[in-house]
Amino acid sequence: MKKGFKSVAIYSSLKDKRVLKIALQISEILENIGVRVIFSDSFSSFKSSASQKQYSDKYIFNNADLLIAIGGDGTLLSSSRSYGYKGIPILGVNLGNLGFLTDLAPEDLTSNLVKVIQGEYVKDERFFLESNVSKKQTTLIALNEFVIHSDLVAQLIEYELYIDNTFVFRQKADGIIVSTPTGSTGYSLSGKGPIVHPDVKAITILPMFPHSLNTSPLVIHEEKEISIRMVSKKNKAKLSADSHNSISLSKGDVVRIKKTKNKLILIHPLGHDFFSSCRNKLGWSLGLNKSNIDIL
Amino acid sequence: MKKGFKSVAIYSSLKDKRVLKIALQISEILENIGVRVIFSDSFSSFKSSASQKQYSDKYIFNNADLLIAIGGDGTLLSSSRSYGYKGIPILGVNLGNLGFLTDLAPEDLTSNLVKVIQGEYVKDERFFLESNVSKKQTTLIALNEFVIHSDLVAQLIEYELYIDNTFVFRQKADGIIVSTPTGSTGYSLSGKGPIVHPDVKAITILPMFPHSLNTSPLVIHEEKEISIRMVSKKNKAKLSADSHNSISLSKGDVVRIKKTKNKLILIHPLGHDFFSSCRNKLGWSLGLNKSNIDIL
Amino acid sequence: MKKGFKSVAIYSSLKDKRVLKIALQISEILENIGVRVIFSDSFSSFKSSASQKQYSDKYIFNNADLLIAIGGDGTLLSSSRSYGYKGIPILGVNLGNLGFLTDLAPEDLTSNLVKVIQGEYVKDERFFLESNVSKKQTTLIALNEFVIHSDLVAQLIEYELYIDNTFVFRQKADGIIVSTPTGSTGYSLSGKGPIVHPDVKAITILPMFPHSLNTSPLVIHEEKEISIRMVSKKNKAKLSADSHNSISLSKGDVVRIKKTKNKLILIHPLGHDFFSSCRNKLGWSLGLNKSNIDIL
Amino acid sequence: MKKGFKSVAIYSSLKDKRVLKIALQISEILENIGVRVIFSDSFSSFKSSASQKQYSDKYIFNNADLLIAIGGDGTLLSSSRSYGYKGIPILGVNLGNLGFLTDLAPEDLTSNLVKVIQGEYVKDERFFLESNVSKKQTTLIALNEFVIHSDLVAQLIEYELYIDNTFVFRQKADGIIVSTPTGSTGYSLSGKGPIVHPDVKAITILPMFPHSLNTSPLVIHEEKEISIRMVSKKNKAKLSADSHNSISLSKGDVVRIKKTKNKLILIHPLGHDFFSSCRNKLGWSLGLNKSNIDIL
Repeated sequence: MKKGFKSVAIYSSLKDKRVLKIALQISEILENIGVRVIFSDSFSSFKSSASQKQYSDKYIFNNADLLIAIGGDGTLLSSSRSYGYKGIPILGVNLGNLGFLTDLAPEDLTSNLVKVIQGEYVKDERFFLESNVSKKQTTLIALNEFVIHSDLVAQLIEYELYIDNTFVFRQKADGIIVSTPTGSTGYSLSGKGPIVHPDVKAITILPMFPHSLNTSPLVIHEEKEISIRMVSKKNKAKLSADSHNSISLSKGDVVRIKKTKNKLILIHPLGHDFFSSCRNKLGWSLGLNKSNIDIL
Repeated sequence: MKKGFKSVAIYSSLKDKRVLKIALQISEILENIGVRVIFSDSFSSFKSSASQKQYSDKYIFNNADLLIAIGGDGTLLSSSRSYGYKGIPILGVNLGNLGFLTDLAPEDLTSNLVKVIQGEYVKDERFFLESNVSKKQTTLIALNEFVIHSDLVAQLIEYELYIDNTFVFRQKADGIIVSTPTGSTGYSLSGKGPIVHPDVKAITILPMFPHSLNTSPLVIHEEKEISIRMVSKKNKAKLSADSHNSISLSKGDVVRIKKTKNKLILIHPLGHDFFSSCRNKLGWSLGLNKSNIDIL
Repeated sequence: MKKGFKSVAIYSSLKDKRVLKIALQISEILENIGVRVIFSDSFSSFKSSASQKQYSDKYIFNNADLLIAIGGDGTLLSSSRSYGYKGIPILGVNLGNLGFLTDLAPEDLTSNLVKVIQGEYVKDERFFLESNVSKKQTTLIALNEFVIHSDLVAQLIEYELYIDNTFVFRQKADGIIVSTPTGSTGYSLSGKGPIVHPDVKAITILPMFPHSLNTSPLVIHEEKEISIRMVSKKNKAKLSADSHNSISLSKGDVVRIKKTKNKLILIHPLGHDFFSSCRNKLGWSLGLNKSNIDIL
Repeated sequence: MKKGFKSVAIYSSLKDKRVLKIALQISEILENIGVRVIFSDSFSSFKSSASQKQYSDKYIFNNADLLIAIGGDGTLLSSSRSYGYKGIPILGVNLGNLGFLTDLAPEDLTSNLVKVIQGEYVKDERFFLESNVSKKQTTLIALNEFVIHSDLVAQLIEYELYIDNTFVFRQKADGIIVSTPTGSTGYSLSGKGPIVHPDVKAITILPMFPHSLNTSPLVIHEEKEISIRMVSKKNKAKLSADSHNSISLSKGDVVRIKKTKNKLILIHPLGHDFFSSCRNKLGWSLGLNKSNIDIL
C-alpha cells in the first residue's frame, strides 16, 4: 500500500441531502479499511454523526492526504481552489451526471473507492491561473478560467492584450476568456473555443462577441504572462474567476494573469480516459458502433 | 419635385461639436432651396442660431416629412425608435465612418443632399420588433435586436423558446439574441450570426454561449411570434432593446417578441447598395481587383 | 374525401429488402381502401408481385396524384427532382431513422397512412434551385443546395459573387454553398450555416473554408439571381447539385443560380412540426423536461 | 562572428523574374561580405550568371549552412520539406506580401540581411509531422498539416480517430485536418481552428464539415501519435501533405501521424514577433491607436 491514502477529508459545496448520505457511506467504507475520515466545515448544516468528525480547514490542511469532493464540477472547482491549491490531492465523486473532473459515481463506491484509497489510481496534474489587478491587493485564483466582461448586458468593453509584455491586439468585445486546459471543456467551449487536452502546456485566449470578425481563439504557452489593459471610456468591466469571485475594473486597470506554482493533483481510478469523458459529456458518440447524432 | 421633401427635421444623439457644424451647414443648404428646417430638442445644449428653429418632438411629428439623423448607427437607432417609428422617413448623415444605416458623408452634402431632398432617392423599408413581458406594462421597441441575458457576468440563464406557441427548445446559455435583418449586421454578427439582407422577411434567433454544442442560428419568418419563458432557478436575467433600454426578468416571466405594424422608412441616395456597405464595414474586399486580407 | 389521393405511386432509390417489404405493405393497405397503387421502375430489381403493377415514369407523371418515397432523405431528394419537380406531391416513409423530409415511420403505416391518403394531411411547399453555366447546355436542379468546390483535395478556388448582377465579393475559398431552406439542415448546417425555417423565402450563401476570416453566412431573398464567376487561374472547380450530379467548371465560367417556377409539394401527417424534427435530428433536447447534452 | 553563416544556398519554387533579380541582389550582397553563395537547381530555368554557381541538392546538403528561400509561404513550405528537414536553417525572403514564415522584405535586404548573416538573428524551431499508411511504403512529411478528405466534391468520409491507440471518436465528415502550430495560421485557420503560437508543443485536430454539430477543434500534445482508420463504405479518400503531395486511401487503411525527430530551424531578424505577423496577415489591427475593422 505504498501510495495509498491514510487520512481522507470529505467536502461538498452542496446542501443536498444525497451529499450527506454518500458522505456517510464513504466514511463507513473508509473506516472499515482503517482509513481516518475528516469531515469539512461544509457539513456543519447537516445534523448527523458527521458533526463529530468535523474539523476546520486548517486541521484538514495539516492532516488530510486526500480530499474527496462530492458534487458536480462546481464542487470540484471550489474544493480545488480551497484545498487542492494547498497541495491536497482531490478525488471527485459525482452526484448524478458524470463530470469532466468528477469520475467516481456513487454506485462505484464499493468497488472502486477502496482500490483508489489503497493505491490503485492515476495522478492528473492541473495548473491554476492567478490574476492581479494593478493598484489592487486582491489575487484571484482560477482552475478553469478568468473572464473579463462588461458589467452591463450586451455592452462592449475595449482592451489591449499583451503577452509577456508584447502587444498582441486592441479589441472591442463583450469580453475575453483566459482559460486553462481544464477550463477548455467549460465556458470557453460554449464560446466555440478548442478542447485542449489536460497534458498540453497551454492557455487559451478567446474573445467574446468581438467587434471585428477576423479574430480566432489563441493558444499560447502556459508559461506566458497575459496582461489585459482596460481602455474602455464608457463601460465598466468585471474580472471573474471560475464564474465565482469577481472584482470591478476601471479604465486604465491592467489585469495580469499567469500560471501559479501550485498545482492541483486530481486522483482518478485506473483506466481514466479524458476522451471517454468527452464522449460522455459532449455526446460525441456512444461508442465504436453507435453513431453520433447525424445532421444529414 | 413630386417626391421631394418640404419640411426637414434635424436630430442627433451626440453632443459632439461637429454635429452642430454639420447641422448648420445642412440647414443652410436646405433653406437655400426653400426647404423648411426644424431642429430637434437634441440641439438644446448647443448655444447657436439653431436654438431659434428648435421645436418639440410633437411639433416634429406633425410637421416634418423627413428627419436627418447626424451621427453613427447609434444615433440612427435612437432616431428610428423616436421618429421613424412614428412614420417620419429618416436620412442618416454619418459623422466619421460610414455606417450600415447612415450613408451620406459630410463631404457629400453639397452634391448629394440636394438631390435626395428634391426626390432623387430610394426608399428602404425596415421592420421593428416589439416585446412584452407577462405581468408587466412596458412595451420595448427595437430596430436591431432584443437580447435576453444574464444579469451577472458569465452566469447562465435557462429558458424555453416557443415560436407561434410551438415549443422549440429548452436551453441553458448566457443569453439569446432575437434580431431583425437590420440587426443582423450588428450584435448578432459578432456572435457569428448570418448576415440577412434587409429585404428578407425574417427574424434571426441566436443563442449566446449555449451550454450544448449542437445549436445553430435559427432564421424564421418575420410574422412569427417568439416567446421566451424564463425557467432559471438562480440567476436573474435582463431584456435589452438595441443595447439601450432594459428591464429585469424573473423566473416564470414570458417575453413575447413580434414585428410591429409600424415600419421604418430609410432614405438613401440613388445607387445605394447594401453589399457595398458590407464590403466597407466588414472589410470583405476593397473592390474587384484588390484582395481581401488573406490568411494563407 | 375531398382532398384525398386516388392513385399513388411508390418509389425508392434503395435496393434494401426492407423497402420491398414496406412497399408491399403500403400497397395492401392502399388497395384495401380502394386506392390504385403504381410501382415505379425502381422496383424492377426485386422479383415480386410488385412487378405486375410496375409502370414507367411517364405513366406515373400522367396517372399518380401522390408519390410515396421509401428511404431516407437521400431517396426523398432524388424523388423530388424526378417526380416532385413534375408536380407530383410526395410523402416520405423513412426506413429507420426519422429524417427532415421523411416523417412517416413504418410502424405508423396502419394508423397514419390511411388518414393521410383520405385527406388528413398538411401541404408543405418547398422551392428548387436551378443552375446554368455559361456556354454549357446543362441545367441542374437542386432541392437542397448547389456546391461549387475545388476539384482537388484542399485546394483553393477563386470566384466573384454577384447578386442580381450586383458585385458582392471576390473570394478565395475551398468552395461556396448556395442552399434552399430545405438544404439549410443539410450540408450547409455542417458548415455552421443557419437553420432556415422552410417558410422563410430565402437562399443561404455559405463560403467553405474561406481564405479571409471576415466572412459570414449570407441570407438573401429567394427571388434573387446568384451569379458566381470563376476567376481561379490554376485549380479546376466542380458544380454539384444535392451532392448528386456534378459538372466541371473552368476559368471564366459563370454559374447562374435561381429559384425554379416548379415547386415541391411535401405531404405530412397532421401535427407535423419542423422544430420537432430539429430536436430529434439535431439532439437539441428530448423534450420539455429532459435536457440537452450539457457541456459545463 | 560566432553564429554567422559562411555558405548560403538560395532557392525558390517560383519561376517569377523578380525571384532571379532578388537572388542576384542577395548573391552580390553576400559575396561582398565574403560569404559563399550556392544557387539551387530551382534556378536552372533562368539563363543568367546564377547558372555558374548552381549545384545539386546533394551538394547543398553537404555545403550550405543556411538556405534563403525567396517567395511566399508556399516556397518556404517546399524548401522546409526539401532542405530544412535535412537540417539546413532557412531564412525566408518574401516576394510581395509579408508571410507568416517569410519575414525579410526585398527592401530590407541591404539593411537587415547582412546583420542576419553575421549572426544577429533569432532561431525559431518548428516541428514536422510524418504520416504512414498501413500496407503502403510511402512516408509523407508536412510542415503545416495533413488533410484526409473525400476524393469527391461534397461527399462524406467516415473514420475513427485514435490518439496513442486510445479511441477518441467515430465521425462522418468531409475530412479532418491534423495541423502543427506552424499550420495553425494556414488551412486550419480557414476552418475556424485556433491560432497556436509556435512555441506551444501541440497538434490541432479539426474536423471539416462534420456530420454532427457537437464537435470542436481538439488540441493535443505534440508527442501523441494520431491514428485515423478509414471506415467509409462508399467514398474514396485522399491524404494530402501541405496541400502538396497526396495519396489515395481505401476502407480499412490506417493513417498514422506523428512528430518527426527532424526539426526545422527558421532564422528571423532580431525583433521578430509572431503576433506582429498575425496583425499584418489577419488584419487584427493596424497598431495600438488604429482600430480593427468594426462591425457595429
